[in-house]
Amino acid sequence: MTRDDAAPLGRCTFLGPAGTFTEAALRAVPGAEQAELIPATSVPAALAAVRAGEADHAMVPIENSVEGGVSATLDDIASGDDLQILREELVQISFVLVGRPGVELADVRRVSTHTHAWAQVRGWVEANLPGVEYTPSGSTAAAARALADAEPGSEPFDAAVCAPLVAEQTGLPVLARAIEDVTGAVTRFVLVGRPGPLPAHTGSDKTTLTVPLPDDHPGALREILDQFATRGINLSRIESRPTGEGMGKYFFSIDLEGHLAEERVAAAMGALHRIFPGVRFLGSYPRAEHRPVAVRRHTSDDAYRAGRAWVDGLLAR
Amino acid sequence: MTRDDAAPLGRCTFLGPAGTFTEAALRAVPGAEQAELIPATSVPAALAAVRAGEADHAMVPIENSVEGGVSATLDDIASGDDLQILREELVQISFVLVGRPGVELADVRRVSTHTHAWAQVRGWVEANLPGVEYTPSGSTAAAARALADAEPGSEPFDAAVCAPLVAEQTGLPVLARAIEDVTGAVTRFVLVGRPGPLPAHTGSDKTTLTVPLPDDHPGALREILDQFATRGINLSRIESRPTGEGMGKYFFSIDLEGHLAEERVAAAMGALHRIFPGVRFLGSYPRAEHRPVAVRRHTSDDAYRAGRAWVDGLLAR
Amino acid sequence: MTRDDAAPLGRCTFLGPAGTFTEAALRAVPGAEQAELIPATSVPAALAAVRAGEADHAMVPIENSVEGGVSATLDDIASGDDLQILREELVQISFVLVGRPGVELADVRRVSTHTHAWAQVRGWVEANLPGVEYTPSGSTAAAARALADAEPGSEPFDAAVCAPLVAEQTGLPVLARAIEDVTGAVTRFVLVGRPGPLPAHTGSDKTTLTVPLPDDHPGALREILDQFATRGINLSRIESRPTGEGMGKYFFSIDLEGHLAEERVAAAMGALHRIFPGVRFLGSYPRAEHRPVAVRRHTSDDAYRAGRAWVDGLLAR
Amino acid sequence: MTRDDAAPLGRCTFLGPAGTFTEAALRAVPGAEQAELIPATSVPAALAAVRAGEADHAMVPIENSVEGGVSATLDDIASGDDLQILREELVQISFVLVGRPGVELADVRRVSTHTHAWAQVRGWVEANLPGVEYTPSGSTAAAARALADAEPGSEPFDAAVCAPLVAEQTGLPVLARAIEDVTGAVTRFVLVGRPGPLPAHTGSDKTTLTVPLPDDHPGALREILDQFATRGINLSRIESRPTGEGMGKYFFSIDLEGHLAEERVAAAMGALHRIFPGVRFLGSYPRAEHRPVAVRRHTSDDAYRAGRAWVDGLLAR
Repeated sequence: MTRDDAAPLGRCTFLGPAGTFTEAALRAVPGAEQAELIPATSVPAALAAVRAGEADHAMVPIENSVEGGVSATLDDIASGDDLQILREELVQISFVLVGRPGVELADVRRVSTHTHAWAQVRGWVEANLPGVEYTPSGSTAAAARALADAEPGSEPFDAAVCAPLVAEQTGLPVLARAIEDVTGAVTRFVLVGRPGPLPAHTGSDKTTLTVPLPDDHPGALREILDQFATRGINLSRIESRPTGEGMGKYFFSIDLEGHLAEERVAAAMGALHRIFPGVRFLGSYPRAEHRPVAVRRHTSDDAYRAGRAWVDGLLAR
Repeated sequence: MTRDDAAPLGRCTFLGPAGTFTEAALRAVPGAEQAELIPATSVPAALAAVRAGEADHAMVPIENSVEGGVSATLDDIASGDDLQILREELVQISFVLVGRPGVELADVRRVSTHTHAWAQVRGWVEANLPGVEYTPSGSTAAAARALADAEPGSEPFDAAVCAPLVAEQTGLPVLARAIEDVTGAVTRFVLVGRPGPLPAHTGSDKTTLTVPLPDDHPGALREILDQFATRGINLSRIESRPTGEGMGKYFFSIDLEGHLAEERVAAAMGALHRIFPGVRFLGSYPRAEHRPVAVRRHTSDDAYRAGRAWVDGLLAR
Repeated sequence: MTRDDAAPLGRCTFLGPAGTFTEAALRAVPGAEQAELIPATSVPAALAAVRAGEADHAMVPIENSVEGGVSATLDDIASGDDLQILREELVQISFVLVGRPGVELADVRRVSTHTHAWAQVRGWVEANLPGVEYTPSGSTAAAARALADAEPGSEPFDAAVCAPLVAEQTGLPVLARAIEDVTGAVTRFVLVGRPGPLPAHTGSDKTTLTVPLPDDHPGALREILDQFATRGINLSRIESRPTGEGMGKYFFSIDLEGHLAEERVAAAMGALHRIFPGVRFLGSYPRAEHRPVAVRRHTSDDAYRAGRAWVDGLLAR
Repeated sequence: MTRDDAAPLGRCTFLGPAGTFTEAALRAVPGAEQAELIPATSVPAALAAVRAGEADHAMVPIENSVEGGVSATLDDIASGDDLQILREELVQISFVLVGRPGVELADVRRVSTHTHAWAQVRGWVEANLPGVEYTPSGSTAAAARALADAEPGSEPFDAAVCAPLVAEQTGLPVLARAIEDVTGAVTRFVLVGRPGPLPAHTGSDKTTLTVPLPDDHPGALREILDQFATRGINLSRIESRPTGEGMGKYFFSIDLEGHLAEERVAAAMGALHRIFPGVRFLGSYPRAEHRPVAVRRHTSDDAYRAGRAWVDGLLAR
């Protein structure tokens, strides 16, 4: 069956607190304005809420992020009960400096933010706020909220580095925009739900899977790749990850170009299941970048059906 | 459908004349005693008779043979209308020397046989019949028959090198047996018919196919082999052959271990059809050597069905 | 040339502050007690100090770590001026709870630590310190040091979650040991220096490299793996990483089993250099796990030399 | 060392008798007019004469030929003492019909030739000489010579099918030219000598080798091909051949594009020697078709040297 695109998002959890880039990713999903948004304290907590039925969906970071959680996301989705990726979103990472009401940039002496965000604005800070004192916070949003929630006059610091969203949400004055040292950074997030019908095939899709490696199987990676290469399937991401069960035990986390509803992808997944029965299917869903997947003529659905019809004809004659 | 093993052989042509090793191969087929055996003057003539409906089956050599025709067999089957290989037979190649009635070995001065057979008994001839005079003949059987058919006293030579079968058929006295310089040689023959139901899957089968190579496709051989290797299929023979359409144009002639009715073979053949639409299926049939084909657990029919069921379950949820 | 194992470590920087697991990794290196240890505020800062000559070596995390920095480590080493990995260390990740002097476990109301460490002790905290208030800190060591450095009576919290090393360094009382929810976690760290002689070949070595992917080269991963597979080289880690130059640009980060001084590794690296001229060699060094690398007979140095001698003999005759 | 192209051919044997297409191939070699040409009765006899030092060189057919011997050539070169292929020649296969002096085409009742040649002119014969009687001969040249040598009036047949060369040599009248049913056929021949310096690298070269297969090595073919594919080497011919030591034992006979003096070919041959120590090198020599071998930039000699220099630099620093 195919997932109904117009289905309501329902209760949606995300890596919180309110105002993170993850919330920005969630708000970019059609229908988010009708959804109930529930911040979670960590990626595992967000995913656990979906598994337990306490939330219908979760938005979590899947690629390099100031909010971390990337490895945790992959590892968590790959273990425990099955989950399904339904959608990916790309968010431009850009920071603002918000101040407590009334403070000027020149007066800022103490700044708070998450340590990863701090690392990404160090150049700007040294140039514009030399000698400032730094206080770590649990997230970029938490620092800004602490500023907004403090009694006037008893703020624990003068300013916070955060996402533009949290500046809007708190109404704190913005002292500087786009203060990141490297511009153009983008982070990838995924919307996750419980197993169910797949999103419809669009022609610009991605499939995510994990393959546990049997012990002492030195040619396993090549065997996996051969199954894709002989069917003309490109990979857009591959990572070997320790399983956590001891050094030397690994699984592969893979994104491939195409949708399980396509013949060549279905054939490759069936082949992996034969060879590595522990393979997990984590979802087929539209790519955030809407380039169509290039399918060579001889690996198209039509070619697959023609090949099978030829063989069936030989067997039936 | 599956071919009925008890079906009568009907009219059977073979690379003649009567008494060749090819006839010996044909006589080894169950039911041959009820069949009508028709010698042909060449492999192409034998195959043409089947294509034209003048014969139901043809027996022809497919591997190194004193009677030649091997390359011709492969090339002829691979071009023209479709034919189907139904069975293979192995025949021990051993030569006898037959003489005209009354002659003793010591009296032999002139010997006739096919040039290829002559090459294979040269050592014995030099040791036992030094200085003998040689007359070529069109086949090993033809030389013996010329001796048997001649008016007594006007034989064109004293003795002939031939297969044991023709000695029996003509009743000519055998002057020496097993005179080949290298013992143990075996030749492979195939029984060919028009396209129809395949012989039943036995677990010890072989499939023959040809793949024409597109121009300028340097990686074609590897692409073909990858389709077999990723499905755990072994090849027992491969040859690149010029197409006859000009230097540099080739096709591959291949024997693989397995039967088209097996999932992994059907999948590989379907894949070749996608990539090289000119692929020809020439038959799935029992191997003359009755070793079972080794099928690794993860390429068994059960594994294929389990893999497909898993994917179907994901698509249907 | 080969690096002198007894060479002094000199000035060594590490991901600080003092008392992190990274410092524990550095202290496990022979000769660390004679070295000058200099904490750095981030992985990029530690590596920059080595590049600039301000430090001789840096110890940084390279695999899943509570102190983060893993992706940053790989990406930073892979860009900028060449660096060289000289050694890897494994450290058991286990947490202790330290308290301000005089506090009992039952009295703890407020706890501080890094957010990643907090995520790893949540189960223990919920069972043993229900309702406790959490304050994030920039590192596990920073929380403990803040406790140790505070004026008695004005501590900002009652306890900190940290590495055993920082408990020793500060002398703070340990309220609980081994409080991590999952035991047996291990983190991998690498010691990095400027390019120079390689550590000696030990028979249990690892080589790290990065390969930038040219645009539109769908078969690149397979081409890379083929160069290793045909030379019998196993990979122990592979990751595709975005280059940061825009979505869709990637490089591969790879660990292989073997040392550049071995023939098969040298041949594979030379081959990669031909095909992907941007390949970077990041070091050959002993594996932390001292299993010998399995070298198949036909890919041994002796086999390589024999193969070359055979060809040279043909060319010289 | 490199073979001196101007070296005299000396004593040259060939698949005889005089007047065969094989002699035509030999006469196309520069310097053949100064050589002593010695017909041999078979391919093995020609090759044995070279091995024994009775001849300096032999010209033998290596691809589909009316004179047969192709499989025999490959198998014989691949066994016994080493031989070396020095050159290949292509000869257009075209037949003439020669008659005994005074006979007209309309009067021809009996024709002789080799059985293979007979098969290739059957269409012309049926159209132009219906009902003619056929006598086999040991070679196309032998039939024509028998006609030329017979006493006038006692010729054993009226006409012979043969190569144009033998018509010239005997002076027999030509009754018809180009009587082959399929025009444009070409046969490939090789000039063979004892092991010694290789012919110089020309940029349009071919290398011939054989690889014996170890028992029970199902992936051997792919392993062989991988060694060529990863070095950008194309194959122009491949055949699995039974070794003659019993069914199921095979070797591969291979032609590749390139010369052993090229880095990529030397590296591939060295690799095969490591994996399959029984590999035999049968020669590097100019291709009869003078298309330059396409060498991709990253498999050129320059690329190989640059890759090695890079690795050497890393090891020496």
